[in-house]
Amino acid sequence: MRRGRAIILLSGGLDSATALYWAAHRGYRTTALSVGYGQRHARELSCARRLARAAGADWVRVRLAPPWLRSSSLVDAARPLPDMPAARIGFGAIPSTYVPGRNAVLLALAVSLADARGAEAVVIGTNHRDCSGYPDCRPAFLRAFAKAVSLGTKRGALGRRLDILAPLQKLEKAGIVRLGLRLGVPLGWTWSCYRGGERPCGRCDSCKLRARGFREAGAADPALR
Amino acid sequence: MRRGRAIILLSGGLDSATALYWAAHRGYRTTALSVGYGQRHARELSCARRLARAAGADWVRVRLAPPWLRSSSLVDAARPLPDMPAARIGFGAIPSTYVPGRNAVLLALAVSLADARGAEAVVIGTNHRDCSGYPDCRPAFLRAFAKAVSLGTKRGALGRRLDILAPLQKLEKAGIVRLGLRLGVPLGWTWSCYRGGERPCGRCDSCKLRARGFREAGAADPALR
Repeated sequence: MRRGRAIILLSGGLDSATALYWAAHRGYRTTALSVGYGQRHARELSCARRLARAAGADWVRVRLAPPWLRSSSLVDAARPLPDMPAARIGFGAIPSTYVPGRNAVLLALAVSLADARGAEAVVIGTNHRDCSGYPDCRPAFLRAFAKAVSLGTKRGALGRRLDILAPLQKLEKAGIVRLGLRLGVPLGWTWSCYRGGERPCGRCDSCKLRARGFREAGAADPALR
Repeated sequence: MRRGRAIILLSGGLDSATALYWAAHRGYRTTALSVGYGQRHARELSCARRLARAAGADWVRVRLAPPWLRSSSLVDAARPLPDMPAARIGFGAIPSTYVPGRNAVLLALAVSLADARGAEAVVIGTNHRDCSGYPDCRPAFLRAFAKAVSLGTKRGALGRRLDILAPLQKLEKAGIVRLGLRLGVPLGWTWSCYRGGERPCGRCDSCKLRARGFREAGAADPALR
């Protein structure tokens, strides 16, 4: 099915890359939006550019550096990163990697781009595991945000649709790996590690979840070759 | 009444300055947030800093320059600014000064700051006239956005309140001038003109609305002295 344009929030990680390929596969013309908000490292963003090109998507980058985001260990390199057993990651308390209101800011920027470019959808790679720890990844938030957007944009005011899509919402990491493999995502180019070294650290929560996802999907992680 | 902290979106214009003083007057500890998003001129932002200091508020500034916002005449100096009879401004079609999804981006940034700093309210200076032209100034949008925010922030997840307040919502410009005068806002330091010259141009929609507001309020505009 031929569709209009979609804006995909692309961090350069496994999830958002899979969401990008999902959108392309569904027939959307794709614009990938990568937002630098002062993350510890720029590794993800260079992966994002490469992935967007591979997917045949336009790539738009925007930078902002809100000083208050240093309360998150994902932004402030002086704060310790969490180091939990994989089975517990994402369940229970809000982790120190929570970036206050991050997805509201990312979605608002994507919506702004969508409203300017006449896109009919915004795609975000939030998923099952994210939901428990991060309030701004939950379906109820995404639904409420979509409702606000339908009221507060030119597109919405003109009666045109602007969907917020979270195609990975019900998937665990293994399911995302399987979907990524099926869609031909170059998974070796995706970057999940919270640290920005030459190779993934293997110790942070994100590395552990990724390793577990590949293991459960019965696949080798091409990023570790 | 002694309240917690409020984040006030402060552009440096008449409306947001009045909203800032309103919040201080209501007993909030105030943090003013000014967002540079590539506006035609930096005049407003220097006014914002001065106003925040006068109000005894913290001042936080964040800059971003999304390339797609050049579709708005408020951002792209190559586009003509609208020039309408004052009585028609703000009614009818969405004007060329509409910045796609702007208030969603501004509110999301303010909410992010509120979530990081433990603020209980975000204040925006949208008002009656804005509502007709700009979909992202309408009460229904602000209500829906507040609902999303209550679901998608750490504060919300912990059951704490994070209100979105629009104290000027029902006021026309004359009412805002009267309120500003009553609250002691240094109105001469506010900047409304869409252009960024030494003095207000007097021709753009924003200058005309302001002039009419002062005239109807029976006051002289101290910015024109």
